[in-house]
Amino acid sequence: MPLENPTIAVVGAGALGAYYGARLAHRGHPVHLLLRSDYDAVATGGLEIRSVDGDFRLEPAEINVYRDSKRMPKVDLVLVTLKATANDQYERLIAPLLKEDTAILTLQNGLGNEERLAELFGVGRVLGGLAFVCINRLAPGKIHHMDHGLIRLGEFGGGPSPRAQRICRLFNDSQINCDVLSDLRYGRWEKLVWNIPFNGLGAVLNKSTDQLINNEAGLTLVRGLMAEVIAAAKGAGVALPQNLIETKIVQTRSMGAYRSSMQIDRQMGRPLEAEAILGQPVKIAQSARISVPQMAMLYRMALLL
Amino acid sequence: MPLENPTIAVVGAGALGAYYGARLAHRGHPVHLLLRSDYDAVATGGLEIRSVDGDFRLEPAEINVYRDSKRMPKVDLVLVTLKATANDQYERLIAPLLKEDTAILTLQNGLGNEERLAELFGVGRVLGGLAFVCINRLAPGKIHHMDHGLIRLGEFGGGPSPRAQRICRLFNDSQINCDVLSDLRYGRWEKLVWNIPFNGLGAVLNKSTDQLINNEAGLTLVRGLMAEVIAAAKGAGVALPQNLIETKIVQTRSMGAYRSSMQIDRQMGRPLEAEAILGQPVKIAQSARISVPQMAMLYRMALLL
Repeated sequence: MPLENPTIAVVGAGALGAYYGARLAHRGHPVHLLLRSDYDAVATGGLEIRSVDGDFRLEPAEINVYRDSKRMPKVDLVLVTLKATANDQYERLIAPLLKEDTAILTLQNGLGNEERLAELFGVGRVLGGLAFVCINRLAPGKIHHMDHGLIRLGEFGGGPSPRAQRICRLFNDSQINCDVLSDLRYGRWEKLVWNIPFNGLGAVLNKSTDQLINNEAGLTLVRGLMAEVIAAAKGAGVALPQNLIETKIVQTRSMGAYRSSMQIDRQMGRPLEAEAILGQPVKIAQSARISVPQMAMLYRMALLL
Repeated sequence: MPLENPTIAVVGAGALGAYYGARLAHRGHPVHLLLRSDYDAVATGGLEIRSVDGDFRLEPAEINVYRDSKRMPKVDLVLVTLKATANDQYERLIAPLLKEDTAILTLQNGLGNEERLAELFGVGRVLGGLAFVCINRLAPGKIHHMDHGLIRLGEFGGGPSPRAQRICRLFNDSQINCDVLSDLRYGRWEKLVWNIPFNGLGAVLNKSTDQLINNEAGLTLVRGLMAEVIAAAKGAGVALPQNLIETKIVQTRSMGAYRSSMQIDRQMGRPLEAEAILGQPVKIAQSARISVPQMAMLYRMALLL
């Protein structure tokens, strides 16, 4: 990746990809968005962003949109914002965008995304990031950024790197809060402590976060799952503190009636990211011989939806 | 209970109670039905039974119906066919019906019903029965008996008894298949091996039995829960054979697309028998220090519905 003015592709410009891509483009960076269902709307009407950090819009002339990655230029940085359910499309969608030194940053949920990208394109290219952001797609080309926005990213190969720092500055320069993780895997597992109970139970029971923690039965389920995630993380070599459980529950109380992405996917009849958020962590725990009966049960229940 | 011509009360004449009560009354036994929502319909229109074992109807003059057990006569045999969610009504509904030697036979689902009846009315009165029957209420006063019908009953205090034999003959004489269990607790736990997975998962996931076993994820869930029920039964002193799991799965395949009672209750927005079918078995397992994480999780999920 060059030191200055990298060209950027966003692969899978749903709400998350469109928002971050629009922020970068709005700041004047050369951004190329790969779209699917919203292509016509964005090509003719541009992108409209309603954001807690300031509304803005991008006219069609200000943004490069595509529906076929073979027609896109090769770029310096690929942001992967596909649903993890579309990971079987990685090769077809990303290969045409790669130069010798192109970096690939996946902002997808769950585990297994960096591993798969590294298998396909080489571990040296791959970074992972966690997006802490509340975003909705109001209509084709209309995005609502409701809260937060922090990206925490790190090298899949581990450790800090000048490249990770440069990407982080690129985001910060574009009104996207960002910091660099010294240990991406810690960040991934730490996020799973929340994602597994609230996405999993939220989808299977069709309950919002407040409905899961405003009663004893729900709290016991959430705490039990969180304890299993912490045990699984330990089995994977990531030491999370036990008091994370109560910290996460307090944070969740402050969120009010929040629907997790997997609950929304269930309500919309869309495929669930069950494999990335539940299945991969279960497999990692089991191969480390950590007992995770509740996670495994939740995973199988999600598969049945 | 007298040797001949016992008088019978049916407490909680939903589909199950109305069906068995109607069979007994149709044979000429003196039956008194305690009804709630269907009282007016049955008092004015009688009972209409569509049954695989032969249709029949009872005119209002052929049947004694009540909506207040204080107005009912004391009887020789009380059949308890309430939903287990109404067990807090036992004392009010049953106490007025008892003579010195009245027997109480509960045909309710799950665990804990006999125990509670014994606490309230004395262990010597109490028998329990398992009803293997497919019954639907088509409309107030209209019952559809679709399949099966066997009652297996036994003394709560254990062992065979002349009284259990007499009640069994009473049923058999009225076209109700019945046999006597030498060990009621064995029967209860054996039935739970089916009820816990198919009622629990059926309700929580809103899936019929075939949808639960026509895929790997569902089969793994069902088998895992069944193994826990067998372990819990062992902890409670009941030795069930391990091959019961595959036997039950084969039986379930032969049932086709069957909705468990708890799935139907969930669809109808009615209270679930979660305590009797899931909560009590979990508590018994835990007090015997048997690990039942999947049963406990399913129980808590059912409480959240």
